[in-house]
Amino acid sequence: MPPAPTRPSKTPARAARPRPQLRLRMRVVCGDTIAIGPGKIELLEAIQQHRSITAAAKALGMSYRRAWLLVDELNRSLKEPAVEAAAGGTGGGGTALTPMGLRVLGLYRDIEAQAQAACRDDIQRLLATVARPDA
Amino acid sequence: MPPAPTRPSKTPARAARPRPQLRLRMRVVCGDTIAIGPGKIELLEAIQQHRSITAAAKALGMSYRRAWLLVDELNRSLKEPAVEAAAGGTGGGGTALTPMGLRVLGLYRDIEAQAQAACRDDIQRLLATVARPDA
Repeated sequence: MPPAPTRPSKTPARAARPRPQLRLRMRVVCGDTIAIGPGKIELLEAIQQHRSITAAAKALGMSYRRAWLLVDELNRSLKEPAVEAAAGGTGGGGTALTPMGLRVLGLYRDIEAQAQAACRDDIQRLLATVARPDA
Repeated sequence: MPPAPTRPSKTPARAARPRPQLRLRMRVVCGDTIAIGPGKIELLEAIQQHRSITAAAKALGMSYRRAWLLVDELNRSLKEPAVEAAAGGTGGGGTALTPMGLRVLGLYRDIEAQAQAACRDDIQRLLATVARPDA
């Protein structure tokens, strides 16, 4: 086995110190149900990329069954389904996001980005309160 | 046992339907450590209100030990402690937030409010994609 890649030797200690980062998680809850959350959004992105629930599940290290259940739950939570079997052309159909799926995915990612941009200064101030551990 | 309170009879079904809501959770992570998160922020608020870790823990349904450990972890994560024993006046000292504790608490709540305000329209659009279950 080849040795693990090493960092440039000039910055050994500094490079090992993690920087504080803000992690923002959004969920749409409806009573006790989580209709939309970060896991379902990642799955939508993977389905958009791979055009197959099987391949999307594999890319996320998730069982097909779990991916299917998440898609089913999401489809039932929304006013229209987010994912559907695509019409079969050459090589068969596969799976695709519907206009509703694209809308939910786009809004979710836009809100995340807008929130981070709108609060940039205060986020920096909050991160600056955290001590960097000596590595 | 007295009967459960009932809703006014005019809106029986409608009142039972939950409305979709956005839940936003922020964490400041530093490597594998969660330096600041919703639980610690709630605890800071309770300490500010009750001026005692014991009373704050009780108000949150948390053991004193757990509250103490969270405070200790937070104090170590920040550049200065967030919570300290207050100087004893009449009736003894108690516990208070330091200027650093007030700063972290204020920034966190401000960022939450700013993020929701900045994204109000897109949040409404996202909530509008979710079906209201028939109750």
